[in-house]
Amino acid sequence: MTVMASLYLKSSTPTFHSLPKISKTHVSPPFNAPLRRHPASKIRRLAVVHISASLIDPDGGKLVQLFVPESEKDSKLKQAASLPKIRLSMIDLQWVHVLSEGWASPLKGFMRESQFLQTLHFNSLRLEDGSFVNMSLPIVLAIDDDQKSRVGSFTSVALVDAKDHPVAILNDIEIYKHNKEERIARAWGTTAHGLPYVDEAITESGNWLIGGDLEVIHPIQYNDGLDRFRLSPAQLRDEFERRNADAVFAFQLRNPVHNGHALLMTDTRRRLLEMGYKNPILLLHPLGGYTKADDVPLSWRMKQHEKVLEDGILDPETTVVSIFPSPMHYAGPTEVQWHAKARINAGANFYIVGRDPAGMGHPTEKRDLYDADHGKKVLSMAPGLEKLNILPFKVAAYDKTQGKMAFFDPSRAQDFLFISGTKMRTLAKNKEDPPDGFMCPGGWQVLVEYYDRLAPSENGALPVPVPA
Amino acid sequence: MTVMASLYLKSSTPTFHSLPKISKTHVSPPFNAPLRRHPASKIRRLAVVHISASLIDPDGGKLVQLFVPESEKDSKLKQAASLPKIRLSMIDLQWVHVLSEGWASPLKGFMRESQFLQTLHFNSLRLEDGSFVNMSLPIVLAIDDDQKSRVGSFTSVALVDAKDHPVAILNDIEIYKHNKEERIARAWGTTAHGLPYVDEAITESGNWLIGGDLEVIHPIQYNDGLDRFRLSPAQLRDEFERRNADAVFAFQLRNPVHNGHALLMTDTRRRLLEMGYKNPILLLHPLGGYTKADDVPLSWRMKQHEKVLEDGILDPETTVVSIFPSPMHYAGPTEVQWHAKARINAGANFYIVGRDPAGMGHPTEKRDLYDADHGKKVLSMAPGLEKLNILPFKVAAYDKTQGKMAFFDPSRAQDFLFISGTKMRTLAKNKEDPPDGFMCPGGWQVLVEYYDRLAPSENGALPVPVPA
Repeated sequence: MTVMASLYLKSSTPTFHSLPKISKTHVSPPFNAPLRRHPASKIRRLAVVHISASLIDPDGGKLVQLFVPESEKDSKLKQAASLPKIRLSMIDLQWVHVLSEGWASPLKGFMRESQFLQTLHFNSLRLEDGSFVNMSLPIVLAIDDDQKSRVGSFTSVALVDAKDHPVAILNDIEIYKHNKEERIARAWGTTAHGLPYVDEAITESGNWLIGGDLEVIHPIQYNDGLDRFRLSPAQLRDEFERRNADAVFAFQLRNPVHNGHALLMTDTRRRLLEMGYKNPILLLHPLGGYTKADDVPLSWRMKQHEKVLEDGILDPETTVVSIFPSPMHYAGPTEVQWHAKARINAGANFYIVGRDPAGMGHPTEKRDLYDADHGKKVLSMAPGLEKLNILPFKVAAYDKTQGKMAFFDPSRAQDFLFISGTKMRTLAKNKEDPPDGFMCPGGWQVLVEYYDRLAPSENGALPVPVPA
Repeated sequence: MTVMASLYLKSSTPTFHSLPKISKTHVSPPFNAPLRRHPASKIRRLAVVHISASLIDPDGGKLVQLFVPESEKDSKLKQAASLPKIRLSMIDLQWVHVLSEGWASPLKGFMRESQFLQTLHFNSLRLEDGSFVNMSLPIVLAIDDDQKSRVGSFTSVALVDAKDHPVAILNDIEIYKHNKEERIARAWGTTAHGLPYVDEAITESGNWLIGGDLEVIHPIQYNDGLDRFRLSPAQLRDEFERRNADAVFAFQLRNPVHNGHALLMTDTRRRLLEMGYKNPILLLHPLGGYTKADDVPLSWRMKQHEKVLEDGILDPETTVVSIFPSPMHYAGPTEVQWHAKARINAGANFYIVGRDPAGMGHPTEKRDLYDADHGKKVLSMAPGLEKLNILPFKVAAYDKTQGKMAFFDPSRAQDFLFISGTKMRTLAKNKEDPPDGFMCPGGWQVLVEYYDRLAPSENGALPVPVPA
C-alpha cells in the first residue's frame, strides 16, 4: 500500500515533528507493540495543542478521549483484576475503540438508560447547556442474567477481551433492561428477521444493558496490517491542520470505489474551491468494523482503494485515507446520522451523502428496506447536525457516449448505464470486465482476485470471506 | 350532567360576556345546529383577544386555528365541489378536529413528508428560527392508489365525511409513500400484530400519505350530547383566563376516575399552592377519540366523571372537565409526549404523568408493552417540552388501615391493596363492590351499569360497547 503509506510519510513536516512520537506512529506503526498505538498522555496533549479554531468543533466542544495515562496503567490493571469481568465480543471491542477515541463525543462510555432512551426516541442527546448533539445509534453493552448477578453491588466492572486480557474499566455503572424488540424496531424501523447486525450482535445477547464511564487501559488494535490506517479523530484533526485544510469533506464508504464515486469526490472538491475554499481536503473513510458476509472485506477494500490512488483517480495530495472503526448497522436514515456525526468529531465540516446511505434490501420482502431519498432528507433535518454541511450525492452513471462515468443527464437517459453493486459483484465473480472507465483496471483486478479466492460454496452455503 | 354543565353556566361572567356567541355556545350548545359550534370568525377573534401572557405560550408562539371565516364558506363550498374528493374515516375526522383547533400547533394540516420524517426520527419539528416543538405521533392521511390517480395533478383536494358532505379543503398537497411497517416500528417500538390503532387505522389503509394545509369549512361535531364538553384550546384558554388561573395542571385519562386519581389531583393542587401559586386550575381531560374495544366508552366515562364531581371528590370551582378530541394510539412513551404537547396548546403548564402512560399489554407476549417508567423519563427529556413542568405520579393504593386510597408507603407495604384496571373491571362486571373508599358509590354504579348493559357475548366474541 505504497500510495496510502506515502500519505503519512508526507506527514513528516516540522509541524508534525513537534509531536515526534505521534509522528513516528504514523510513519512506522509499532505492529509488534500491540496496544500502544497512541499512548493516552500523548493524545491528550495533542488534543489540547492541535485542535485549531479553523476546524469544526467536536460535539460537546471537547474531543473525548478515554485512555488511562501511562503512569496509571499499572494501578488500573491491579484494579481491573479485583473487579467482576465482562468478556467483550469483537463488536463490543469495536465500540470500545469508537468510544475511546471520541468518535461518539461527548459520550464517555457505554450508554446509560437516559442516553439510550434519548437515542431511541430523539436520535440526539441534550447537553447540560440545553443544546443537542446528534446520537442516533445506541452504543450499548449487553450482559446476561449471570453476568448481572456476578456484578452484584460492584460499581465498576472490568472489560476483557476473548483471552481475558483486561481492556478497560467501566465505572459508575448502571444496569437496565434490554428490550431488544423495542431497540430494533426504533433503530431499524422494522423487526423483520435477517437484519445482519441484529443477528450478529443483538438476538443472542443478554437481557440487560450496562452503561458507565470508560477508562481504556489498552487501546484496541487488530494486528491485521491495517492498524496504521486507523487514525483517531485527534490524529485526523492533526493531519488536517498540518495540511492547512480550510475545509474537510468526508466520504463514508463500505464498498469498492468506482469512477462514479471518484467523479463525485473530485467534483465536490471543485465546488468547494469555487465556493472560495483554498485547500479542501478529502477524508476517504472506509468503514472498518463489522460488515455483513456478502460485503467485500476491509482488507480487500483497502487494497482496492490503494489502486485507485495509485492510478491517479484521486489525488494523494488532497486525500487522506483512513479507517473508520465503527461496526455497520445497515440502519439507513438512522445510521447515516451516526456516520455524519462521527466525522464532525474527526474534523469534517462537509459530508457527502448518496442514494440510500447505510441501506440494504429488506431482509424478507422484495424491496429496499429504506426509501432511497430518506437518508439525505433525515440528515438535513437531524438535531445536532446543523453545523455540518450536507452535500447530497448527484447520481453518476456510465455514459456510453463518453465511455466514462458522468453525472446522469435525464434529458438523454438512453445514453446512460446504471451498474448496481449487485451487477458489479456479479461481473467480478464471473471475471467479466465492466465497461471501460467504470473502475480503474488495477482496482477491478483486486475485486476479481477477491472473488476468485473466495472459498467455493460446496453445499450452497455462503462462501467464507478470506483476508487479502 | 348537572355538575359539569354548571361549570359552564358559571362561566357567564362579564369577561365571558364580551364574547356573547361563544358564551352562548358554552351554556346552550346548539345540538340542533350541527357544524356551527364555534364559527371561525369568532374563534380567531378569541385567539387574538384572550390568549394572555399569563398562560403558557402555544407551540410556535401562536395558536393555529384552521377554520374558514363565515364570509368565505360559500365560495369554499363551491371550490370543494370542483376538487377531487377524499372520504374520511371516523379517525381521520378526529384528526381534522384535532388539527383544526390547534391542538397540534404549529401544524397547519396533515403532515407532509418532511414533518412525517422528523416525527418518526426525532419526535419533534424544527421551526424556522431553529427551535424545536415536540411532535411525536404522525398525524397523517392515507390514500390508496385509486385515490392518488384521481388526484392527478390537482394541488388541492376536498375532504368529505361518510355522507360525502365536504368538511375541509387540503391545499398545496404533497403525496408520498406510506411505509406502514416503518411507521409502526418507529412509533410503537414493535410491529407485533394486534396493536389496536394499527388494526383500526393503518393495516388496511392506502399506500400513500397526503399532506397539506387544512381549511376547515365545517367544524367537526359528533352530535352525541357531548359536543358542549369538547372545548377547543382557545376556549379552554379563555376559561382559564376567566378563572384567573395562575397555573393549569392537566390530567389526561381514558379510564374511570377512582379515588387514587382524585387524591393525586387534589394533592397536586396542594403542592402548587405550597409553591406559591394562588389559583391552580385542574384540567380533567378525558380522551374522546378512538379507544380500543375493551376500554370504557367515552359516554360512560363522562357519566362517571360527573358523579365524581357531584360527590364532591373533586372541586368544581377549581376543575374544568373537557374532552380531548384525539384518537388513542396506545404507543406509550411516544404517545405521552403528544398528550403533553397538546395540553401546552390548551394552556396547561403542568402535566401529571403516571405509571405506564398510554401503555397496554404486549399484544402477543405476556408482559407490558412498555417499561412502566419510560413514559415519565422520556417526557422529562423530550425536545420541545422544556417549558412544561412534568409532575410524576406518586403511586396510590388502597390503604386497608385507613379504609381509603392513599399514597403507597413501602415501609408498611402489607397495609396496601393494589387494584388494577383489570381487577376493577372484573369487579364491576361481576357486580361486586370494591373496598369502601376506592371510588365514590355514584361513580361505581355507572361502571356496574355499563357492564350490565354490555351485550352479552354469545359466540365468545367481544361484547359490543353500548352508548350511555
